[in-house]
Parts: sequence; structure tokens; C-alpha cells
Amino acid sequence: MKAKIRAIGVDDAPFSFSDENVLVIGSLVRAPNYLEGVLSTEVSIDGTDGTGKLIEMIRDSRFYDQAKVIFIDGAALGGFNMIDLERLHKKTGIPAISITRDEPDFDSIKSALKAHFTDWKEKFEIVSKGEVLTVDTPHKPIFVKIEGLESEEAERIIDLFTVRGRLPEPLRISHIIASGVVRGESKGKP
Amino acid sequence: MKAKIRAIGVDDAPFSFSDENVLVIGSLVRAPNYLEGVLSTEVSIDGTDGTGKLIEMIRDSRFYDQAKVIFIDGAALGGFNMIDLERLHKKTGIPAISITRDEPDFDSIKSALKAHFTDWKEKFEIVSKGEVLTVDTPHKPIFVKIEGLESEEAERIIDLFTVRGRLPEPLRISHIIASGVVRGESKGKP
Repeated sequence: MKAKIRAIGVDDAPFSFSDENVLVIGSLVRAPNYLEGVLSTEVSIDGTDGTGKLIEMIRDSRFYDQAKVIFIDGAALGGFNMIDLERLHKKTGIPAISITRDEPDFDSIKSALKAHFTDWKEKFEIVSKGEVLTVDTPHKPIFVKIEGLESEEAERIIDLFTVRGRLPEPLRISHIIASGVVRGESKGKP
Repeated sequence: MKAKIRAIGVDDAPFSFSDENVLVIGSLVRAPNYLEGVLSTEVSIDGTDGTGKLIEMIRDSRFYDQAKVIFIDGAALGGFNMIDLERLHKKTGIPAISITRDEPDFDSIKSALKAHFTDWKEKFEIVSKGEVLTVDTPHKPIFVKIEGLESEEAERIIDLFTVRGRLPEPLRISHIIASGVVRGESKGKP
């Protein structure tokens, strides 16, 4: 795979629980950090439309053929609107990598889902699918799930897109954009 | 001035004339193209609040001390909401550079303003202040106005922030963000 690889990084904006929907940003970045395009959509907070909205946002875009990988910040957008990485990969044909900086604790997630959602089983099934891999970075490790590519290739791609800190640029950039647009000013991520 | 210089690039989003306000994005970029923050505000279409809104957006930001220059795309935001570069510089204390890719034709601007605005004199006074300089780039020239720095320094800073094409990265990035957020997908600028 060439170094001119492009990725879409997806993150959601801050929201309050009185909101119905939350802004979601997808940044198309050429490695390591050249921003070539921005996509946006909205997903319902704690809803179930996140995966479908992402598939639509990416497939309808003129950047669809260019993105060789999709990065997702965490396991869900807009609270507990779980992203089904396998479905996202299958419906777009693009390998997908979700990244969290804290190791997922599935017992706590299950309890939280049970306490708040009648559809907790469906939500938990999506979030607990697939294997969580630990990827070392020059800083602390990150925790990833991957669909559509081997773990070595995923690690190579994460490394290609990482400039500073632990987050690949497409995720770092989408975080800054989403937060800056909704709050008027972006807040840093470590 | 060191190469680690940071700039805020300001551009507005696309709008239709039925809108009252338009989204304005300010990207804080470390040379040449590392995005460190995003600011946002709204200005009224064809209104007079643009300069004040920019001053407020920048002064209220935690990036205020970091930006060594402000780039503005063109002479106005939101249609004919003219940006007073001199006032922007004086009130922020930050040198300001406006950039257009077509040479401004002040006769045409005057006619357009006269035809549409009762306050055309005020708008024309702002837009016709200052000297338009032609700056060569590896591509076609660009046309700039500067406040608070010498033309040689301005050219050096523009060059520091230009990666591809004719636009400095802080402007190119703000254009992509503003357009992607409002349209759902950014459109390219040459």
C-alpha cells in the first residue's frame, strides 16, 4: 500500500442530553495529515441510526473511492448510538478501525446499557462483537477493533497517520472540527 | 520569526440568500498545515457585523495569544459584510492579511454596492481602504492587503503556510470545513 493512502476519520460533536441529534464529522485526510475534504451528518443521541448514517455519508460522497480506511472514535457516536464496524465495512467495502484510548470494560458497558435502554441487548451485541487489540504507540497503548484488514496492516496504517500523541490525524482533526463548530471553540484532546 | 508560527485562517460557508446568517470558521494552524484548533461564529449576510464578530471570536479564544497572523479569504464574509482589515488588526493586535485570487475591480464593486445597498458608501469605504499588492506564487499570483506587517514579511508568511496551490493552508482548511459542515460534503477550491 502506498504512502499516499487516504482515510476518513469520524467523530461526533459535544452535545447535551436535551439535544435530539448530534453533529458527526468525517475528515478525508491524505497521510499523514493533509486535509482534503470534510463530510458531515447527524445521528440521534442514544439512537440506532449511527451505522446507517455513516454508510450513507461515506457512500454518497465523492470521496468514496479514495478512502482506503475508515477510523471511528470509540464504539459509538452520540452517546450509545453503537457503530457496527462489521456492517460499516461490508456495506462500504472499506476496511474500518475503531480506536479507544481506554481499554473497554464490557461488564460496565453491559450494566450501563441494562440500566438505561430497553434495547440493551441489541446495543450490547453490537459493542461486544469482534476482538479488542492492544496497539502500542510511542505514548500509551490504544485499543482497537478492525474489520477488513489484518492487524499488522492496521498497525502500519495507524502509524502512517499518527503525527503527535496517540490518535491518528483523521480522528484528531474531526474531533477539533466537530467541537469547534458546535462550541465556537475546540477543546484539546490529550 | 520562527517556523513554528501559527495563523488563524477565516472563511465563510456557502449560503443561500434566504438565509439570515452564515457560518464562519477560523482554523488555527501551525505552519505549514498542522491543525490545532477550530473557532466558529456567525455573521449576518450582507450585514455590517463581520469585523466585530471576528474580533470577538479571536479575542475570546484561548488561541488568542498564539496566532501571529490572521488570514481572511477575500474582502467580505457572508456576501457583502465587509471586513475592515485595519480595525481587525488594531483591535486584536494581530497582523492581518486578506487574500483574493482575482484582482479586485473596484469600479465593479462600487456599482454592485450602489445598486443593492443604501449603506453603499460605508461598505465601499471599507473595501477600498488600503493598497492591493500582487504576490507571486508558484502558480498564478494572488492579490493581498496587509495590516500590521511589511510586504516582505507577509510574502514570507504566505509562503510558509502554502503547501499546494495558491491558498495558505489556514484558508484552504477553513474553506473545506465550512463547506463540509453546511453542505454535508466539501467542494474543492482550485
